[in-house]
Amino acid sequence: MTVGLSIFDLLTPVAVIDETIMETNIKVAQEYFNRIGRNFRPHIKTHKIPALAALQLAAGAKGINCQKVSEAEVFADAGFKDILITFNLLGAARLDRLKALNSKVDLQVVADNTVVVDGLAESFDKAQPLKVLVECDTGAGRNGVQSPAAAVELAKRIAERSGLKFHGILTYPKPSSEADVEAFFAETVALLKEEGLACAVVSHGGSPSLFDSDLVPSATEHRAGTYIFNDRSLVRAGMCDMDDCAMNVIATVVSRPTETRAVLDSGSKALTSDLLGFSDHGHIVDYPDASIVSLSEEHAVVDLSRSERKPQVGERVRIIPNHTCVVTNLFDRLVFHRNGVVTRMEPVAARGQVV
Amino acid sequence: MTVGLSIFDLLTPVAVIDETIMETNIKVAQEYFNRIGRNFRPHIKTHKIPALAALQLAAGAKGINCQKVSEAEVFADAGFKDILITFNLLGAARLDRLKALNSKVDLQVVADNTVVVDGLAESFDKAQPLKVLVECDTGAGRNGVQSPAAAVELAKRIAERSGLKFHGILTYPKPSSEADVEAFFAETVALLKEEGLACAVVSHGGSPSLFDSDLVPSATEHRAGTYIFNDRSLVRAGMCDMDDCAMNVIATVVSRPTETRAVLDSGSKALTSDLLGFSDHGHIVDYPDASIVSLSEEHAVVDLSRSERKPQVGERVRIIPNHTCVVTNLFDRLVFHRNGVVTRMEPVAARGQVV
Repeated sequence: MTVGLSIFDLLTPVAVIDETIMETNIKVAQEYFNRIGRNFRPHIKTHKIPALAALQLAAGAKGINCQKVSEAEVFADAGFKDILITFNLLGAARLDRLKALNSKVDLQVVADNTVVVDGLAESFDKAQPLKVLVECDTGAGRNGVQSPAAAVELAKRIAERSGLKFHGILTYPKPSSEADVEAFFAETVALLKEEGLACAVVSHGGSPSLFDSDLVPSATEHRAGTYIFNDRSLVRAGMCDMDDCAMNVIATVVSRPTETRAVLDSGSKALTSDLLGFSDHGHIVDYPDASIVSLSEEHAVVDLSRSERKPQVGERVRIIPNHTCVVTNLFDRLVFHRNGVVTRMEPVAARGQVV
Repeated sequence: MTVGLSIFDLLTPVAVIDETIMETNIKVAQEYFNRIGRNFRPHIKTHKIPALAALQLAAGAKGINCQKVSEAEVFADAGFKDILITFNLLGAARLDRLKALNSKVDLQVVADNTVVVDGLAESFDKAQPLKVLVECDTGAGRNGVQSPAAAVELAKRIAERSGLKFHGILTYPKPSSEADVEAFFAETVALLKEEGLACAVVSHGGSPSLFDSDLVPSATEHRAGTYIFNDRSLVRAGMCDMDDCAMNVIATVVSRPTETRAVLDSGSKALTSDLLGFSDHGHIVDYPDASIVSLSEEHAVVDLSRSERKPQVGERVRIIPNHTCVVTNLFDRLVFHRNGVVTRMEPVAARGQVV
């Protein structure tokens, strides 16, 4: 068995999680939200593992956030009772599954357009209505209604349907846009009040500006995923330090074709091609001046020109990924450790759940 | 069951394969290699499905190419007997598995350095020696010895070890570098002959320049993966047309937040972030003037400014991915169809096999 082994004796590439750092990340975020008096709803996309969501709830989180019906099913089967799905859901087969889910757990979904609202309304009935939040685009340029007035329009349409219950508003914000989010939320909440529509939930989100959530006083809850492991993108955002990153991908140096080139066995099948604005593919903890300049599926090419020390073939190195969530989705299991000694393995139960 | 459904009635995102196009791709490539009198060894990385490798062998391919021991195990278990693993293999636990594999199938591996050769030599013995090819860097700048002289040096070291059998040379080339590859190969073959070392295999590879393989007359075999499905990168390379692309990711338009923005449910968990040099994330067959400008894990943001027609919420669209192989690795199964009617589903048996 793997438990008790050194993480440097595992077959590579492998994604490992430092339990101590992870526990601290969970605790520090929850304490922050306790302090500002706000509900916290972790997004499971970063770990996709029920045992980790259980730690987040035990620390004080209110419920969980999933992105797809199939993910929510995995977590409902694992016993989670308070689930928000933050994706526009369409299609009869999917809505049948959603209805089954709504009969088992306290479920909320989002909508940002009338097609989605009408589809949901046709699938649900007043015996067991579905709670719907209106998704707002407060600047991220992805999904969401474009103005507080449009949010209220859609809220009214939801409130009119007997199978649905208008439950609140939600945004996935652009990082460092707290003032814009607060302005959008405050205006929408005021307009909803004028219309006599109760707005139980005002949901803000994101890991990069997690500790600035108090700058959005209208919010009643915050959603975040990446904070549990942290990653290179969050270090860049000033949200944490390298020492707060719980996930490493461990890779082996398989080739040293030239004096300045090393090749690792952690290609895009381990690190993904997600640059997240970086020009290279992760931070090599053991060779911080080396740069992962390109990936193919199984190879990572490392430029050693600026690294005084050079690794040897066979050596293991630890990489902090640019983006942890996408790495988790590539592995069937994550390996956990304390001080480099393996403590457990957890199947990534909701890996690859796309529908 | 899904068989018999229209591909436009499937839950999205979903990766679908047009069987007719795939069969033509298999046939056309094999006929080319038959014509130039060269062995063809398909790389399974593109499909990771034994049933498809079986079609490639039935068409005339000599054997298969895997990248990892774990992939080779899946295909050996499925009955494949001639397997080349094109990756430097290190570590006792991995080499134990390799040895078990070598007792079941006709196996070849590669090496480009002495650490790998010595590790292999310690794990194998003359009762059942392991065939080893020397990997050469002919310009791609990844793994490989840097010169014909270095290739011969390593070949001699392999030939000296009783557990190993020097079996030939191999390159993964830079596209359109046939002259460089031929020069490297021809010189190495001549030097090996001078040393009295038999070189059974001279292995060339890659899909982008597959139909220029005759420009490398020293080669005895060609390896390629992507050609079976083709993709947007191979259209750009001039290797095929859009109509020759067998894989589509089908996505649903889930939001139309503005006049010029659509959002699809095919994020980086379906399309990957692999740009392969493109500035956008795939070709939308149904809206060729629309551009997938950014991906997050579950959302694809589409710019419709240059598209006269605009899709509606709920509409399904077909996307030709930039790079098929990485898409396959994200899905637990691929759905096959003829003329849009589902014919079968195949589990991606070797998905996520990284060690």
